[in-house]
Amino acid sequence: MDDVIATRGISGTLIESVMAAIADRIAARSLAPGARLPSVRSFAGTMRVSVSTVVEAYERLAAEGVIRSRPGSGFYVCGPLAPLSLSEIGPKLERDVDPLWISRQSLEVGDDALMPGCGWLPPSWMPEAALRRAMRTLARAGESSILTNYGTPLGLPPLRQLLARRMGEHGIAASPDHIMLTESGTQAIDLLCRFLLEPGDTVLVDDPCYFNFHALLRAHRANIVGVPFTPTGPDVELFGQALERHAPRLYITNSGVHNPTGGVLSPVTAHRLLKLADASNLIIIEDDIFADFEYTPAPRLAAYDGLDRVIHIGSFSKTLSASVRCGFIAARRDWIDGLVDLKTATSFSGGQLTAELLFSALKDGSYRKHIDALQVRLAKAMSETISRLETIGITPWLRPQAGMFLWCRLPEGLDAAEVARTCLAKGVILAPGNAFSQNETAGGFMRFNVAQSTDVRIFDVLAASMRALGARI
Amino acid sequence: MDDVIATRGISGTLIESVMAAIADRIAARSLAPGARLPSVRSFAGTMRVSVSTVVEAYERLAAEGVIRSRPGSGFYVCGPLAPLSLSEIGPKLERDVDPLWISRQSLEVGDDALMPGCGWLPPSWMPEAALRRAMRTLARAGESSILTNYGTPLGLPPLRQLLARRMGEHGIAASPDHIMLTESGTQAIDLLCRFLLEPGDTVLVDDPCYFNFHALLRAHRANIVGVPFTPTGPDVELFGQALERHAPRLYITNSGVHNPTGGVLSPVTAHRLLKLADASNLIIIEDDIFADFEYTPAPRLAAYDGLDRVIHIGSFSKTLSASVRCGFIAARRDWIDGLVDLKTATSFSGGQLTAELLFSALKDGSYRKHIDALQVRLAKAMSETISRLETIGITPWLRPQAGMFLWCRLPEGLDAAEVARTCLAKGVILAPGNAFSQNETAGGFMRFNVAQSTDVRIFDVLAASMRALGARI
Repeated sequence: MDDVIATRGISGTLIESVMAAIADRIAARSLAPGARLPSVRSFAGTMRVSVSTVVEAYERLAAEGVIRSRPGSGFYVCGPLAPLSLSEIGPKLERDVDPLWISRQSLEVGDDALMPGCGWLPPSWMPEAALRRAMRTLARAGESSILTNYGTPLGLPPLRQLLARRMGEHGIAASPDHIMLTESGTQAIDLLCRFLLEPGDTVLVDDPCYFNFHALLRAHRANIVGVPFTPTGPDVELFGQALERHAPRLYITNSGVHNPTGGVLSPVTAHRLLKLADASNLIIIEDDIFADFEYTPAPRLAAYDGLDRVIHIGSFSKTLSASVRCGFIAARRDWIDGLVDLKTATSFSGGQLTAELLFSALKDGSYRKHIDALQVRLAKAMSETISRLETIGITPWLRPQAGMFLWCRLPEGLDAAEVARTCLAKGVILAPGNAFSQNETAGGFMRFNVAQSTDVRIFDVLAASMRALGARI
Repeated sequence: MDDVIATRGISGTLIESVMAAIADRIAARSLAPGARLPSVRSFAGTMRVSVSTVVEAYERLAAEGVIRSRPGSGFYVCGPLAPLSLSEIGPKLERDVDPLWISRQSLEVGDDALMPGCGWLPPSWMPEAALRRAMRTLARAGESSILTNYGTPLGLPPLRQLLARRMGEHGIAASPDHIMLTESGTQAIDLLCRFLLEPGDTVLVDDPCYFNFHALLRAHRANIVGVPFTPTGPDVELFGQALERHAPRLYITNSGVHNPTGGVLSPVTAHRLLKLADASNLIIIEDDIFADFEYTPAPRLAAYDGLDRVIHIGSFSKTLSASVRCGFIAARRDWIDGLVDLKTATSFSGGQLTAELLFSALKDGSYRKHIDALQVRLAKAMSETISRLETIGITPWLRPQAGMFLWCRLPEGLDAAEVARTCLAKGVILAPGNAFSQNETAGGFMRFNVAQSTDVRIFDVLAASMRALGARI
């Protein structure tokens, strides 16, 4: 008998017994998560093994992630504090199409990265001069309370007046006291979800839709149901079926030019949708974050409904600044009261400074000029991007009336997640279709931001990756 | 028989039958919340009554809030969309001591109101010049991406470095990648609650504690347990009992000078507390928002624990600006990853501009000078406020080492909520004790902000109110 093997065998068995003894205690909760393990010396006594056997057993358990050591303090049962993990709520997705993937990639890279998958404009497309002017004005003339104090619960009155007027232009009758400012458009939706949802409630989203709706709704432990989106809004037939089958509490959608598809709600779809919502007591959140991209305003659900069951939200992160964060909620007055309490409890008060800056920049006549120029610039980038994509076999699902997004079909047989992975290795961040699709039916699609697609290297990398994956282009 | 009475009687009975028929259907959910009621005409047919009887029945139900009318559309069952109401979670409290009362009052009034109950400094006590300088600098020299783009997921690197250095001065070893910026200190706690709590989890708080902890925890549907606070930290004996009895997940407290009591954690309490927490696998959130008020730093739980089960958070809302909102979380690296995902999902990205402004103002040498001057000014206001309160029979629970809060006992037999109500009618906003007390054991206490108590009219109003309520002073 080989001594070395024998020693290993015996020692291995002893180590395993010690490991099993600890595992039993953890299973029986006599060692609860977070509890300190017996000291090596005392457990060696208990188990009648050597100290080094216990050390080895503890280290193996630590390597397995069952326990962990704290220098100078001993070993502790792991998983004790295991907190909410967004990736563990809802179905497991490939990391590439996990709803947070694109956000994470786009937020973490430098400004000079190539990111046609990104959801915002490049800094150079934003109205920097107006912002600098607004900051100088406030630095010079802002009251000291504006610079140092909390804002009021509803938020800056003149900004709410300006928002009410803007909504009026879209046919939405909202007085300033129907409007509450929030820290961002995302926070607006988040507050509303807290206000309206219980864990397990069903929420309808468009399929495809803005991917962060998925992440946000997962954080609320909502049951998400996707309704296929057509060029004129959600498929009304399937929407009705989803209402019957799932009795959802809420539907979240984009108004104006839809993200990612570029579709636009038609009046007849809007009307039918609201009739269905009325009959099923569905609440609708309409996210109007892309309002200023439109040439011709599309119907707003809130305009048809009169802020009864439709809640209208927005921000200026996409057209003014994503750094000066400020969003808003327009809703029924009785809901605004409850929302104010919830906002106070969970974020105490909005940023008065950002609201003042935003107001100052929005009322500056140059904002309108910026938008006019932006629309022209986007239209040009849209045409160019469409041509460039078409030369490599990628075709738009529709030609959007406005906005920065182009929802495209890849050549037959290509998987967008694979293409995205391949391109990421070459420094190009894409937005693969299934990140937007609750039903994962968009594996052959990709969203392009035309303002982020002006560098021709993007198309070279994309074409090379697609060829490497077998596309004949 | 009197015809008029007879007619009324019959009509009344018929109306009530119609009302009862509708109420039955609502109770049986054949009319679900939000559903449209049968038209007046058709229901008149069903019930074999006149149209005007149904109209009257519907109108009474509407007046009772059971249904509501929508012009041109008919009547609908109410309460359909009834959303989360913070006041309905947890025990019903008098509106005066409801945890949101003081916030609401203080945030809604103008800057010139008398508000000794307010939780922040007057604008004139804040470092306005440093903020104006920071804004001018950024308006002139800030990169365009800083003015227009989203921040990175963790937040501005040089600010995180500065925070890590500050923590180092308190003995807390945190590298910048253990730190995530948030939109505010309140948002930091809110994110952590989402990360760590399930509805129904028990959370320990100090009794008394910062009242918004109550409101925030209610929004998370947590079970709140208060542990009596002593001048050197929570009562360790009772803390241990609460751990055994309630198996809480979390303990939230203030570090440095405690709000509202002005107490300061002693080393022995800190050590015992952490031993208990270790044994019970309790996570601790330490809110360090008052750090810069201290002359001599008190022990930090995070320094003793090494950011293992203690999470350290803070902001500069109390000493720099509450308008330039930015907070931070310092925690275990593995938790920071999960928190970044949660922050991205629920608020997408922090405000880069406010982080830059804060960084610029903090690194400005004038901030340290502001703090030095502020400490002297607060000490003076503290002495004056104590003298003035003592002349009207109000005595401090202890004389705080630093900070702006003074926790005081009213003359025997007075109820702080009553005093607060009486003073509010005279334009003085106070902070009655039970707003801070989960166990409602602080009905004879009141918190004063010495920086907001420099106007002698406050003490006149207070004395008059107390006399009117029977105090012999």
